[in-house]
Amino acid sequence: MVWNGGPVNGEMMMAEMASQPEVLTRLVARAPSDAAKVRAVVPDPLAGVVFLARGSSDNAAVFGRYLAELTAGRPAGLAAPSIYTRYHAEVDWRGYLVVAVSQSGATPEIISTCAVMKQAGAVVVGVTNELNSPMADAVDVVLSTDAGPERAVPATKTATGQQALLATIASGLRAAGPSPAIDLGGLPGAVTAVLADPEPAVSLAHRWADVDRLVVAGRGLGYAAALETALKVKETTGSLAEGISTADLLHGPIATVYAGAPVLLIDAGGPAAADLEELRELLGPRHADVATLPLPAGPEPVQVIAATVRGQQLAHAMARAKGFDPDAPADLSKVTATI
Amino acid sequence: MVWNGGPVNGEMMMAEMASQPEVLTRLVARAPSDAAKVRAVVPDPLAGVVFLARGSSDNAAVFGRYLAELTAGRPAGLAAPSIYTRYHAEVDWRGYLVVAVSQSGATPEIISTCAVMKQAGAVVVGVTNELNSPMADAVDVVLSTDAGPERAVPATKTATGQQALLATIASGLRAAGPSPAIDLGGLPGAVTAVLADPEPAVSLAHRWADVDRLVVAGRGLGYAAALETALKVKETTGSLAEGISTADLLHGPIATVYAGAPVLLIDAGGPAAADLEELRELLGPRHADVATLPLPAGPEPVQVIAATVRGQQLAHAMARAKGFDPDAPADLSKVTATI
Repeated sequence: MVWNGGPVNGEMMMAEMASQPEVLTRLVARAPSDAAKVRAVVPDPLAGVVFLARGSSDNAAVFGRYLAELTAGRPAGLAAPSIYTRYHAEVDWRGYLVVAVSQSGATPEIISTCAVMKQAGAVVVGVTNELNSPMADAVDVVLSTDAGPERAVPATKTATGQQALLATIASGLRAAGPSPAIDLGGLPGAVTAVLADPEPAVSLAHRWADVDRLVVAGRGLGYAAALETALKVKETTGSLAEGISTADLLHGPIATVYAGAPVLLIDAGGPAAADLEELRELLGPRHADVATLPLPAGPEPVQVIAATVRGQQLAHAMARAKGFDPDAPADLSKVTATI
Repeated sequence: MVWNGGPVNGEMMMAEMASQPEVLTRLVARAPSDAAKVRAVVPDPLAGVVFLARGSSDNAAVFGRYLAELTAGRPAGLAAPSIYTRYHAEVDWRGYLVVAVSQSGATPEIISTCAVMKQAGAVVVGVTNELNSPMADAVDVVLSTDAGPERAVPATKTATGQQALLATIASGLRAAGPSPAIDLGGLPGAVTAVLADPEPAVSLAHRWADVDRLVVAGRGLGYAAALETALKVKETTGSLAEGISTADLLHGPIATVYAGAPVLLIDAGGPAAADLEELRELLGPRHADVATLPLPAGPEPVQVIAATVRGQQLAHAMARAKGFDPDAPADLSKVTATI
């Protein structure tokens, strides 16, 4: 990658991005035993599955939420922590599997909400990169993203590690019946292929070097990659990037896509691909500045994770093109102490 | 309100905003019987409560989701329609109360997903402004926002009508026990007071006439008003406005709030008010352009609905200040045919 002669910042983030195939290879190898650990604790009967997270982890949770509803055959959703940390609600969580996701395992509102939900009857599975964190004591089963220390502020290897682990958890939730496990076999290779080909993201970053606002649209499983890409661009560049479902974009927010407005479409294949095509046709006459980034072929969940890596490349390169240090965006710290 | 001598557009939206006290008075009067209709169909045992909606209705659903989890004492969440319309998932919805919200009662993906969920065992309550719509046939109980025809593209009286009706539904979900009904008695008066005092929103709109991006932050119940205000600003002005939880804003997106960046804080009182104060202190050293709009005193749910009306005023006045017609933003239509 050519840095236009500027000082070389963003090396930590780049190194952590580069380690993703190795991290994902470990997680794919562990998938059968991780899925079995989840299957062993699923409540019977299962009332529902709820994901509890913030930030990058919450975007991975959106991915897990879609997959879990598809595999478990029971409704899934996302928790609203303030209901517990601020309103101190008394809720009966019996019959629920809660999947709590925190890179640090230390975000106070996540840990305290885990404890309340477990006390109220939920079975809680924790996903973290730090097995020696408060999360390990607050959950029934803890699974590690095992990505090694993450030092760049924007989460990369832990974010895709969470996505892979949540797909494995969804495999563990499969209802009795014919539904096959989610096949992540091609994942390390797909991410390797994306990392070996940074040019499309770097070119787009230069095209968008002056962009201060960006819409990132996806649908179905790809919506999670849209949210995560928008978050990475926000973190590294300070641009206001909004991740949005293509279906929501058509309901009013389309007004924000005027002539020249930059829009990134996440097309991860799968049954929602037609929606992306429809949106593209609608954006044509608006003369928006529409882009997509190429992805290797593969099953939709693999493509979503590969798209997330594309988003990391774009965020890193946009920050560099703007003269920012992607490793340490202004005034951000790694563990956010929301309570 | 002074329009700076320009042509007077936005009269439909303004008239519909002005009718809100009347609409809300009707809904408050109907609240006990509406709550009883819901209570009569709640599954026993109740597995969970899920809200199904898009657009403005989805923002009202966020309000309903928080209130329902607080009152029902069982987990609540938001549906992802594409799981049904695109992935054709087979999910067991027995034990669930689904609340489907659609102003037109005709959004195809909402109606088809209602039908699938009902078929799969859910009890479905519909909230619509059109009793003679396809929704009436797809649900078990239908409740009307009874707001009269809405002709301006940005939903106003139906949006606050939905919020009031969802609060009533939450009252109907109260678990056996001491939790009181949500008191909406002061709502028509609070909205009347906001409408009688447009000056704070109009002043802010002039201050932000050149704004092309805006962060709207709230927490707890106020998060729903943040989302709806951001949507209204997007629809009427084309600015990229993102509604965000204050807790999420602290996790990375804070990088988007640099010196001079406009931020609207929704402070609807209640136990999350301290988070708004904390955020305000954090934004000070960043030299962001932070604003809040005044609200009449009242219980938190009433303040959230009043804050939503403040957001309508801001969106209307920002559009006018930018020379746009709030009634009919470019290329938007009233019924969005996402399927």
